[in-house]
Order: sequence, then C-alpha cells, then structure tokens
Amino acid sequence: MQTPRTTPSRSAKRVHYDADIIHPILDEALFCTVSYAVDGQPMAIPTAFARSGNRLYIHGSVGSHFIREIEKGGPVCISIMLADGLVLAKSAFNHSVNYRSVIIFATAEKVTDEDERMEALALITDHLIPGRWADLRPTTDSEMRKTTVLAFSLAEASAKVRTGGPGDDPDDVDLPTWAGVIPLKTMRLEPVTADYSQGIALPDYIQQPN
Amino acid sequence: MQTPRTTPSRSAKRVHYDADIIHPILDEALFCTVSYAVDGQPMAIPTAFARSGNRLYIHGSVGSHFIREIEKGGPVCISIMLADGLVLAKSAFNHSVNYRSVIIFATAEKVTDEDERMEALALITDHLIPGRWADLRPTTDSEMRKTTVLAFSLAEASAKVRTGGPGDDPDDVDLPTWAGVIPLKTMRLEPVTADYSQGIALPDYIQQPN
Repeated sequence: MQTPRTTPSRSAKRVHYDADIIHPILDEALFCTVSYAVDGQPMAIPTAFARSGNRLYIHGSVGSHFIREIEKGGPVCISIMLADGLVLAKSAFNHSVNYRSVIIFATAEKVTDEDERMEALALITDHLIPGRWADLRPTTDSEMRKTTVLAFSLAEASAKVRTGGPGDDPDDVDLPTWAGVIPLKTMRLEPVTADYSQGIALPDYIQQPN
Repeated sequence: MQTPRTTPSRSAKRVHYDADIIHPILDEALFCTVSYAVDGQPMAIPTAFARSGNRLYIHGSVGSHFIREIEKGGPVCISIMLADGLVLAKSAFNHSVNYRSVIIFATAEKVTDEDERMEALALITDHLIPGRWADLRPTTDSEMRKTTVLAFSLAEASAKVRTGGPGDDPDDVDLPTWAGVIPLKTMRLEPVTADYSQGIALPDYIQQPN
C-alpha cells in the first residue's frame, strides 16, 4: 500500500505495491533484516521468516533482547533484498544492481493462539526447506514455551525492482569497454550429512535442483 | 570493539570483535543494509559498500532522502549477513543457520576530500567487480557533483559466526530423520553482454571462477 512511509524519494518507477509482485519476493528470499529503534538508536537483526497470506512471521527465543524489544509493539522496518545481478555499464556512474527488494513498515503482534504459533513454525521451517516439517518429530510443549512467534501485517509493504541491462549515456555506448550483466544466484550445494546421521538417505524434498 | 551496544543478549560465544574475523566478512559480502531512525521510525536500505582499513564507504545520489538523512550524523546500524548453510536437525527446534554476520554502530561522516571520494568510488566498484575501475573511462566532475560519499568507522563493529553441523538433543540423535547441512553460496552465473556491447570480449577480470 502506498503511504508516505512507503513512497520513495527516487526511482519511483521501480516501486510496486501489488501483492503479485511483493509476495513472490518474500517467498523466494530466505532471510529478512528486522530494523527497530531503542531510544532513537537503530538496531538490525537478520532472521528467518515466512509469509502466510498478508502476514509475515518470525520467531525467536523468549529470552532474546531483540524479540522482547520488538514485541512491545514499537515501529519496525523489515527489509528483504534478492540480488539478481551486477549491472556493468561503460561508466562507473551508470553501474547498477538488478535486485528485487521489499520494505515493510509494521509493528509486531505477539501470536498467542497455540495453533497459529505451531503453524507459523511449520511455515518458517518449510520456507527454508520445503517439505521438512512433515519429516520431523512433533515439537514439544517445552520447546513451544521457549519460543516467541511474532506476526507483522504486510499492509504497508512495498517492493522495488530493477531488471535489465545497463543504461549508458549516449556518448559512452561506443566505448570499447565490455558492458552487460553478471547474474547472481544463491545456490544450494551438495548436502553434508551429520556424523550421527550417516546411513540415513537424503530425503527427496532435499534433492531438489538448486 | 565490545561496547554495551555490541554485546549480544544471546549466543555470546558466537560473537567476535577482531578485525581478522570482521574484515573478511565485509570484503566477501556484496551488499549491506543501512538502518537509521527518523523520529523513532526505523528505516532500512540495502546498498553497495566497500571497506578500506577500519572504514566502510557507501555512496548515493546527492538527492536521495536516505543519504540526506544519514549524512546529518544520526546513529546508524549497518548489518551484513552471509548465509553459509541451512542446518537441519532432527527436531524443528534445533534447526539453525550457518552464517557470518557483522553489525556496525556508527554515524556517517560525509567525505569531502575529492581524492578520498574518488578512491571510495573505485573501492565500491572494485568490491563488486574486482578490476573493473581500471577498465572504465574517468568519472566526470559532473558525475562527482551528483554523488555523495559517506564513511563509517568500524570501531564499534562486531561479528557473529555459526559454523558446523546440527546440535541435536541426546534423545533425538537416533531418530531416523536425515540431519546435516545444506550449504548455500551466492554464485556468479554466465555474463550477459549488453546489446550495444556485442563483439567486445569479456574481460579477464570477469572470467573469474564463481
């Protein structure tokens, strides 16, 4: 949704408020950065998350200062960036980055319903490793008591996207310097089995491409 | 440097204040997230950066609200995270992430010396694409006038690092669930030449592995 906070000062044409653009970015990104302020001092924590409909969930230890601070309900800014490519122009000035980013302004809502808490933990687990949750033993009451789940509305979310090649000045296009894009991608490499898990076959849901 | 701000509430054993640990993380990461607060409202912007000694540089348009806000010298928190692997335990609770992160508390110093400004832009360019700067036409006075360069001290920086396999509860280690690590890596894929740059050979400095 476009609000004064989500209206950028620059590159307005790159900004989007549609769920059709925002949700796939959130679903592809593995981690977000949660920024908050304590007495005017900004703090930032990278963490795992998951989206469900128009809500974003994070979790953490009930003892974490970070979690205890933001669960008070102060303003939070959640940022996510997928770096898709380095954009090399013929001038330094026109170098750029292809990216898909999302910024969310929201306040934490502490989730207290036990079913929703469990569902959020399943979503966060399966967001990182699709199919994992169903392969795990049930989470215990003791583990649940040690865990805080926070939800954030996506109502005030915006996305910024750059795609395509470099945009060089007309005077520069014939310079003999290579110009183009170096795509970037986060890859999943060959899994490494834990010592105490030798002999257990890698499950199908992990043998996914990339 | 350990200060109250850089002392974590949890996982203290994972925290480091040594340049030997902090600098390589900064040098490997391509982007950072700059968090700041305006009237208590946290804001966060992902951006490129480079390190030189004990300083971190970013740059931006002189017209950017973000740049104009933080150049006032208010407190800033810069966060960087390299996600190295998904750590799969036999319980959801013990799932984790291997990562190397850095948090920097600092205030922006606007760089005014023209030599240092140019050096910072070269460092930022070469940080993303080592060797690129020397291949580019000189940056013009006009381009320099449109660009703000900000420096941040790394004096109050800390790193947090998790490595290794999962740590399961003793009661869980014999469960028939696969446990281990799925390594993550940001890869550079095959470069895509711009339409107006066809026929210009890809320079050696781009044909680097990964």
